[in-house]
Amino acid sequence: MMENKTILLGSRPHGTPTIENFEFTQTDLSPLQEEEVLLKALYVSVDPYMRGRMSDAKSYVAPYEVGKPIMGGVVAEVIDSKNEKLQKGTVVVGNLPWQQYIVHHGKGLNSIDPNMSPLSYHLGILGMPGLTAYFGLLHIGQPKEGETVVVSGAAGAVGTVVGQIAKLKGCRVVGIAGSDDKINFLKNDLGFDEGINYKTTSNIKEAVAAACPDGVDVYFDNVGGEISDAVIFSLNKFARIAICGQISFYNNTSPATGLRVEPILLKKSAMMKGFIVSDYAEEFGKAARELASWVKEGKLQYQETVKEGFDQIPEAFLGLFSGENTGKQLVKVAEREY
Amino acid sequence: MMENKTILLGSRPHGTPTIENFEFTQTDLSPLQEEEVLLKALYVSVDPYMRGRMSDAKSYVAPYEVGKPIMGGVVAEVIDSKNEKLQKGTVVVGNLPWQQYIVHHGKGLNSIDPNMSPLSYHLGILGMPGLTAYFGLLHIGQPKEGETVVVSGAAGAVGTVVGQIAKLKGCRVVGIAGSDDKINFLKNDLGFDEGINYKTTSNIKEAVAAACPDGVDVYFDNVGGEISDAVIFSLNKFARIAICGQISFYNNTSPATGLRVEPILLKKSAMMKGFIVSDYAEEFGKAARELASWVKEGKLQYQETVKEGFDQIPEAFLGLFSGENTGKQLVKVAEREY
Repeated sequence: MMENKTILLGSRPHGTPTIENFEFTQTDLSPLQEEEVLLKALYVSVDPYMRGRMSDAKSYVAPYEVGKPIMGGVVAEVIDSKNEKLQKGTVVVGNLPWQQYIVHHGKGLNSIDPNMSPLSYHLGILGMPGLTAYFGLLHIGQPKEGETVVVSGAAGAVGTVVGQIAKLKGCRVVGIAGSDDKINFLKNDLGFDEGINYKTTSNIKEAVAAACPDGVDVYFDNVGGEISDAVIFSLNKFARIAICGQISFYNNTSPATGLRVEPILLKKSAMMKGFIVSDYAEEFGKAARELASWVKEGKLQYQETVKEGFDQIPEAFLGLFSGENTGKQLVKVAEREY
Repeated sequence: MMENKTILLGSRPHGTPTIENFEFTQTDLSPLQEEEVLLKALYVSVDPYMRGRMSDAKSYVAPYEVGKPIMGGVVAEVIDSKNEKLQKGTVVVGNLPWQQYIVHHGKGLNSIDPNMSPLSYHLGILGMPGLTAYFGLLHIGQPKEGETVVVSGAAGAVGTVVGQIAKLKGCRVVGIAGSDDKINFLKNDLGFDEGINYKTTSNIKEAVAAACPDGVDVYFDNVGGEISDAVIFSLNKFARIAICGQISFYNNTSPATGLRVEPILLKKSAMMKGFIVSDYAEEFGKAARELASWVKEGKLQYQETVKEGFDQIPEAFLGLFSGENTGKQLVKVAEREY
């Protein structure tokens, strides 16, 4: 019998997830029926939003079930097929279980052109994080040339793309991240104008004010909490805030409290909007083509942190909450066969 | 010498304003120069936003100065004139001092057609509060037929107009106010579908959920604080929140804290925007004409609470913070002469 590991949600985390919340199991494969394909996982994406699905609280995506596989973005290769639209050797991306080999009904998978870009890019710059950056910044933030854009979680999969697109649009870009290495990467490699290390800066509010002498016009918020408060005190009149992530609250067990933004939004005639990338699903094709062209032209750089081996998936996920990754975190599970 | 009282800001309030923060003085009138007019105040508007101007904190409008007159919306009559565009007998509305007679340079005053509507309406339904309701609801809230609109401070000058316009647009309308008399007025006289008395309801959150079985699509927020929190827990996906007032925080001396709305906006892909009516100044003319036509057609009812006498202005203002008024609060200072 072929080894075929699956990672299940073993138990729901209370607060920050731990390795004990995950459970490995062996899954047997049934023979392929008509239309079915056998998939081999190549790259698995780990993302902060998955923390929300590990709880059973009502959220914007359904919770994972205890004893069932964790699902997420996976790049996989068709290694056997009874589906003529998905020939052996086709590479696809889809919402799939954390599992080495998968018998799949063949629906909801998107084929990838392996010559367009590295396969893993479809979990990042051309996938969910890249599209999230694109729509949050351009549709909600609407940056104009000469404006100041601040992004928190700036060194992450979404933040690195937000900052680069803002530079493309002619903005002053300030990134907030959690290490000097990340700040140097943002400024030296990605062209950010300024960076703030929130872990070593004694007063973030003053640091934001100093880094944004003309105030903040657009804030792309990946983190929430006190870092965001510091930015919000520097908002300009008619500022726009895209709420993309609130990672500082994902492990909360009751509604978060803190600074009230409403009086500040009132004073500044400012706008704040939450979103999830699927809100813009109808425009994915156009956006991905534009992102791909920017990558090809060298206008958009893309960085990944890749762990190797299926067994490393839980650790890669847990690392998101301690700020280990620069750029998109993913796990390489296997090589292509065909 | 003619009696000519002026009300000055005597001292800045710390917390809730009191009668001691106001100071009455006698102002002498100089002879009219070319282009000047002598104005007689007829109606004086008192508004919650004025509390902000009594502090010296940076806000969206400049603070009043201690020892200088309080300024605000006033309807006045030209009783003497050296300005051919403003003949004796003309009635105007403008941003004027709380003063019985005013020598004015003649600029920035808007003439009123006394036959179009009662003069005082230009401080309310056709003035700042009516326009505030119009733009906040229609431009930010964008209510669609069949949606649910909740308005707090529902019995106030802005709230009464918000609810009625929402009914005009085919929405279910729920008003939150502070007495059973106000709730009855909203439901019986203005056609609101439901009302919640926040002073007697034991659990506002449950009351909002019960009054909005299909959830909340638009929230027009005049008050902020715990009342708003209760509404925010019932938001639908893609809800819109217009932040018009935060009266519960106007007397705060440090940044307000409480529920974090950002994680909720994220889950619901909801939008929140602050505004001040002057953001829409370019569209005032069109909006006032539409409001006036609705009033003439009987589609929009309008209620005022009028105190009589110049000396009553401070009390009328202080009453805003204890919820004394139904509809627009103003003070009648004098009768027309011509």
